[in-house]
Amino acid sequence: QDHFEQLRHNRLFEWSVVAVIIFSALLAGAKTYDIPVSVSRTMVWLDYAITLFFLIEISIRFLGERRKRDFLKSGWNVFDTLIVIASLVPIEDSELAFVGRLLRIFRVLRMVSIIPELRHLLNSLLKALPQLSYVALMMFIIVYIFAAVGTSLFADINETLWGDIAVAMLTLFRVMTFEDWTDVMYETMAVYPLSWVFYLLFIFLNTFAFLNMLIGIVVNVMEQ
Amino acid sequence: QDHFEQLRHNRLFEWSVVAVIIFSALLAGAKTYDIPVSVSRTMVWLDYAITLFFLIEISIRFLGERRKRDFLKSGWNVFDTLIVIASLVPIEDSELAFVGRLLRIFRVLRMVSIIPELRHLLNSLLKALPQLSYVALMMFIIVYIFAAVGTSLFADINETLWGDIAVAMLTLFRVMTFEDWTDVMYETMAVYPLSWVFYLLFIFLNTFAFLNMLIGIVVNVMEQ
Amino acid sequence: QDHFEQLRHNRLFEWSVVAVIIFSALLAGAKTYDIPVSVSRTMVWLDYAITLFFLIEISIRFLGERRKRDFLKSGWNVFDTLIVIASLVPIEDSELAFVGRLLRIFRVLRMVSIIPELRHLLNSLLKALPQLSYVALMMFIIVYIFAAVGTSLFADINETLWGDIAVAMLTLFRVMTFEDWTDVMYETMAVYPLSWVFYLLFIFLNTFAFLNMLIGIVVNVMEQ
Amino acid sequence: QDHFEQLRHNRLFEWSVVAVIIFSALLAGAKTYDIPVSVSRTMVWLDYAITLFFLIEISIRFLGERRKRDFLKSGWNVFDTLIVIASLVPIEDSELAFVGRLLRIFRVLRMVSIIPELRHLLNSLLKALPQLSYVALMMFIIVYIFAAVGTSLFADINETLWGDIAVAMLTLFRVMTFEDWTDVMYETMAVYPLSWVFYLLFIFLNTFAFLNMLIGIVVNVMEQ
Ligand code: NA
Ligand code: NA
Repeated sequence: QDHFEQLRHNRLFEWSVVAVIIFSALLAGAKTYDIPVSVSRTMVWLDYAITLFFLIEISIRFLGERRKRDFLKSGWNVFDTLIVIASLVPIEDSELAFVGRLLRIFRVLRMVSIIPELRHLLNSLLKALPQLSYVALMMFIIVYIFAAVGTSLFADINETLWGDIAVAMLTLFRVMTFEDWTDVMYETMAVYPLSWVFYLLFIFLNTFAFLNMLIGIVVNVMEQ
Repeated sequence: QDHFEQLRHNRLFEWSVVAVIIFSALLAGAKTYDIPVSVSRTMVWLDYAITLFFLIEISIRFLGERRKRDFLKSGWNVFDTLIVIASLVPIEDSELAFVGRLLRIFRVLRMVSIIPELRHLLNSLLKALPQLSYVALMMFIIVYIFAAVGTSLFADINETLWGDIAVAMLTLFRVMTFEDWTDVMYETMAVYPLSWVFYLLFIFLNTFAFLNMLIGIVVNVMEQ
Repeated sequence: QDHFEQLRHNRLFEWSVVAVIIFSALLAGAKTYDIPVSVSRTMVWLDYAITLFFLIEISIRFLGERRKRDFLKSGWNVFDTLIVIASLVPIEDSELAFVGRLLRIFRVLRMVSIIPELRHLLNSLLKALPQLSYVALMMFIIVYIFAAVGTSLFADINETLWGDIAVAMLTLFRVMTFEDWTDVMYETMAVYPLSWVFYLLFIFLNTFAFLNMLIGIVVNVMEQ
Repeated sequence: QDHFEQLRHNRLFEWSVVAVIIFSALLAGAKTYDIPVSVSRTMVWLDYAITLFFLIEISIRFLGERRKRDFLKSGWNVFDTLIVIASLVPIEDSELAFVGRLLRIFRVLRMVSIIPELRHLLNSLLKALPQLSYVALMMFIIVYIFAAVGTSLFADINETLWGDIAVAMLTLFRVMTFEDWTDVMYETMAVYPLSWVFYLLFIFLNTFAFLNMLIGIVVNVMEQ
């Protein structure tokens, strides 16, 4: 066991894992190009090799753990194990082929679990999540109310943009990103000349909520 | 009275209120879809049930208040009461139907009055308001002056964008959000080749004012 | 003199000045609409009345100043006096009519000199200016270099966007605001497939410089 | 040597260097306009003169250095020397003409090495670089994964936008800047009505990562 623990913290071992992850990412990218059948066949074999490598790596890390039950206490270990085990399931069904490809792509995320700085970054992202979620809820409520009002006002003007509350929410998210929002506004202003009030109020409320969120996070981080 | 006060702070009571608010929000959203008449009729009954529930809830909270006059001192209670009372007014006039629908949509805002974190968020938004209003006034003055200059220069080029000071202000707000602002600029540059100065000056002034506002708020929050 | 000094700090006097400034702003805005000749004639008279009012107000403030030479030491007094004196010059030449109209519009800026909070805001804007100017210079150098490179590469592809260094800088400012920047890029990518490197490098450098500026200002403000 | 050291720190010398750099920048800009042959010939001579001036200036700064080996220890000196030496190489080959023109343009960057405030700004930019690079890596991973997924889903819908992982990454960068991103989305929604989830998830993840980066930098700067 000590042998495995030593291996696990070996610099060469760590760097070869990073190298294999990058190689598997490049492989996932290469598949999106038109490739001759012969190369494609080699790729399938490389895929098997990568899966095997990851299986061995996870095993080493498991064997190198002093108390075996601690292994799955780390979310990263669980994530890595799931990704590797899921890759092992043979997918012959063409309908599940997409899921298989997706799993191979998600192996790129192992980069985050391997590089400490990225893990640290993600942790700080997750720490800010609860606070952000209330601002997100607030903005969702704003969007929901404006979408409900927008649908009852503008549904007859443009069915595609304001037909029901779902598409109206998408349209308002578009307005939030300032993406051709004046086209949306000019269209409704042709019928209701005062409808610019609706859009400007929406934009101001959101900008305001967003600014407040930004400041809230900065202040929160400061206090720690 | 103690009984009502107990009920008011009961977890189950609080959660059922949140549930009914979410349900009333979903109902408001569902109405924007094409629905068969039978379902539509059920919805009207559900609407009555929600109004009744809110009426009972407000009454419990009022009866649970130790000193009755304190009840309306809270802005949230006033808001909740107004929304519920307004829902009680029977709207048969088709012209007021829109107002009635709006009131039902605004019931979603009760979410903010019920969830303490959202209430806290809104309070901090309102606290930042006086300071923001001066920046808003400053930006309004900038937009107003540029709109007045823009109208006297460009009104003959594009009546829709620069016809009078109101539409010119809307056009400049559009330029502020960078929404196809070059289309607006290229059009006037065809007549006045130097008019890019107008737009760039406007953008710089606004970016500058906005940045200052952001910093001002951060500093203000820090000092507290 | 004491009488004038008292009057100068009189609440009613201050508010009536603000009211007249707002009225003169509304007048400037109203002129952008099509108005009948009779109203237009009244407006000219109102304009004279406003100029007269401002003349009297400035005089009161001058007479209310203890040491007369201190009056012009304040930049705001100089600004106010210039605006008022310039309004007095009779403009009959139709060519200068635009300048006259501009001066009437700039009277709106007197709002900033009257309201202390806006004056405070502008002062803090001006205080941040020297620091901002170096970032602006840095960004200007980036834009200049990319414009020079862009012109020598893309001038033959689109004369209007990349014809000389001036229009190339305008095009790059447009790219900086993300305004239909992909249209610009796709056009040059049709000839130089790798030209996306040019645009992405430009965007990253600018975003980076902008972020740094933001942080620099926040830190600077903190230290004070 | 003392003589050169004195000259080097002479105000007049410093300002004349800045003046020549600005002049060389204007020259690089002027070349992008259509100019008569006679002027063009003068410009070639001016170019030689500038190169000669820079050669003399670098020599003075080198001779003014107390310990000669310290001269190349400063990155700025290395940069300046390289730019000047590269300008000396005669470029007669028409294929290398572009490289020569590029070098002349890069002389504008000497402005940064001459003005202390800009040098300070660039240094603080470089100090923030290592921390930024991890956020950039994180965002690159996000874009890479979404591009891989996007290609396998949308390649048949629009070959130009989603054909392979490279163009898909460019398309996603475009979505990140909100540049006509709804056009991209509406196109894929016509085939997969739920594909808005893909875009919104992508936008939220990136906004979130970007916000975190911003906050991370502010906090880091504060701690120093
Ligand atoms: Na945009
Ligand atoms: Na756009």
